Amino acid sequence: MLSVSGSSLTHLESRALRDGLNVSDGHPRMPLTPSQERIVAGIPDLFHEALRRPFDEVEEQAQRAFLHGIGQRRAPIGTGRLVSCYSSSTAMDMVARALAGRTSTVALIHPTFDNIPDLLRARGLRLVPVPEHELDGDHAPQLPEDVGAVFVTTPNNPTGWVLPAPAMARLAKSCARAGRVLAVDACFRAQDPRAQYDAYEILEASGVEWAVIEDSGKLWPTLELKAGFLAWGEGTDLPLLDAFNDVLLSVSPVVLLLIDRLAEDGGRGGYRDLHQLIAGNRALLRDLLAGGPMLVADPESRISVARVTWGPAGPDADTVYRELVGRGLHVLPCGPFHWARPAEGRRLIRVALGRDRAEVAAAGRVLAETARGWNL
Amino acid sequence: MLSVSGSSLTHLESRALRDGLNVSDGHPRMPLTPSQERIVAGIPDLFHEALRRPFDEVEEQAQRAFLHGIGQRRAPIGTGRLVSCYSSSTAMDMVARALAGRTSTVALIHPTFDNIPDLLRARGLRLVPVPEHELDGDHAPQLPEDVGAVFVTTPNNPTGWVLPAPAMARLAKSCARAGRVLAVDACFRAQDPRAQYDAYEILEASGVEWAVIEDSGKLWPTLELKAGFLAWGEGTDLPLLDAFNDVLLSVSPVVLLLIDRLAEDGGRGGYRDLHQLIAGNRALLRDLLAGGPMLVADPESRISVARVTWGPAGPDADTVYRELVGRGLHVLPCGPFHWARPAEGRRLIRVALGRDRAEVAAAGRVLAETARGWNL
Repeated sequence: MLSVSGSSLTHLESRALRDGLNVSDGHPRMPLTPSQERIVAGIPDLFHEALRRPFDEVEEQAQRAFLHGIGQRRAPIGTGRLVSCYSSSTAMDMVARALAGRTSTVALIHPTFDNIPDLLRARGLRLVPVPEHELDGDHAPQLPEDVGAVFVTTPNNPTGWVLPAPAMARLAKSCARAGRVLAVDACFRAQDPRAQYDAYEILEASGVEWAVIEDSGKLWPTLELKAGFLAWGEGTDLPLLDAFNDVLLSVSPVVLLLIDRLAEDGGRGGYRDLHQLIAGNRALLRDLLAGGPMLVADPESRISVARVTWGPAGPDADTVYRELVGRGLHVLPCGPFHWARPAEGRRLIRVALGRDRAEVAAAGRVLAETARGWNL
Repeated sequence: MLSVSGSSLTHLESRALRDGLNVSDGHPRMPLTPSQERIVAGIPDLFHEALRRPFDEVEEQAQRAFLHGIGQRRAPIGTGRLVSCYSSSTAMDMVARALAGRTSTVALIHPTFDNIPDLLRARGLRLVPVPEHELDGDHAPQLPEDVGAVFVTTPNNPTGWVLPAPAMARLAKSCARAGRVLAVDACFRAQDPRAQYDAYEILEASGVEWAVIEDSGKLWPTLELKAGFLAWGEGTDLPLLDAFNDVLLSVSPVVLLLIDRLAEDGGRGGYRDLHQLIAGNRALLRDLLAGGPMLVADPESRISVARVTWGPAGPDADTVYRELVGRGLHVLPCGPFHWARPAEGRRLIRVALGRDRAEVAAAGRVLAETARGWNL
């Protein structure tokens, strides 16, 4: 029998790369738009441009185009406190390593993608789950005294939940008072305008020690030609640059120039088109499931994945996952996102929306048909 | 004053990316050959090819072209025990993480590039230095009982030392008997035919638990469009796949196809040209320094860096490094390579040879002039 429990989400996603209809991983796999096609056709020119120009200049240009384009005008570009990494996970692990030198315990948003708790635990950190609603309530969350850092993903994967600006300010101030680091994973920021307030301005104003991870990897179907970005505050006492230097000298300036051009294109309508594609695919999935036992959760979510849920009389998510694989459809069961309490994910699967509309339609039809077979 | 001690080698290399003459990092920065130019011009076609084809097929093709081309015909392609990583350092850290779950102490080759001891230590591992001559002697090295793994870089950076096949077989058998893992970093393999015996055949035959890191990143001036590869044995009980899955779903298939084409080109004369460029630059450096107090060490080395040394009456390497930076020349002082006994590197600097001949000539002239100023 296809093994599910004990498998990481990425392991399940890698199966979906091999065959069948893949709405498993959250990587962008829709067709390139015509203007993106033109940018890809120009990669050899970007290569020669990168050969000619100093790396620092190329890097700052790309960081500025990308981060300013999504509202992050106070990101510390050009200060030495903003490094470009192979991916957001590479950046994430640098944060995990630096935090482990400072604290034993991290409060982590719950649920979230399982590689975050895995990377933190692999550095020896103990984790305390913090539900989303405790982060955006009227008060900063009450945390055990030994918590030395708070780690928040916003927009969160898989729920699409966003930490509003006032709640971030409240959380940052409370962390500053308690001497805790605030680490923010904003990898899905570009997909949701509600997350595009200037987080750096809020963090710097609060006096907290902070780190922020940004990502180009969720946006454009560039076949993993992407970068993650890791920034930290002037007063942040974490050896993040050492962790960076141990892993890389630099990302490819060709990839940085590609990000620069795609971010520019985003500002000229590319982001609007992306948001419409995702919203359209979410609505399509909702419509295809209408009338059956499955429904799309998180109606407010804007990110490129949708959770699908069903009532307690239905099978558990691992069973549904296996049944869907049998029909050639790859999704993710949501148990592993609920890293502290997997049972909370047992009536949820995740469907990727960063796909051609026809693929989401095909996936939706398989889901609807499967659910009809349950005879609930 | 320019700080040297306490800086990692990568930190010093990153300074060299900003200005002056950079023979600091070992990354390939020579001009593209005409056939490499044609491959780069075809990247948009590789992109569309990667869009059309299954990832696994592209990955296996690239791994086969690259690894078979450098003699590694028994590499475990297609078994699930050979993963493609963003870089060799990403692979290295996966090995460090997996080893930390199994042992407290690793015997590590001495000297070697400092990010290797740094990544191992960051995972909480204690290190025991093993000099090169103990690895290729008539007997396997005698190691303290608590050593749970041996980590060897071959060809080694910065010395160019190569572990011969019989010594690898002896070391592997001795590790097998003692229940130790043997980890091999073969990132510079493609530069030295003496390292192109089939390491996988030897490792599998010995019964040892093993991991091997390979790298495309030292060979072609593709501006960090590269991959590292991490392989392990069928009987190797290390959670390397978990460590991989926590960091990435996959590298870019565009980069894999680029490696495929460059490896093919390597077989058609590209490797011969690369070896000649490096050998020519090494000889040029030697000739430019002739008659002065500096000389090129490691005359047998074939890798794309050269150590330069001088007598005990000369200044120490950090002083020389600073003097050279003052003249606009970036090299590396060798202290940090000697991670257990930095003083052993105090009369050594490292000069990168993966450069245009004119750059190495300019660097050699600055070195010769600097050394003449010592009035020894």
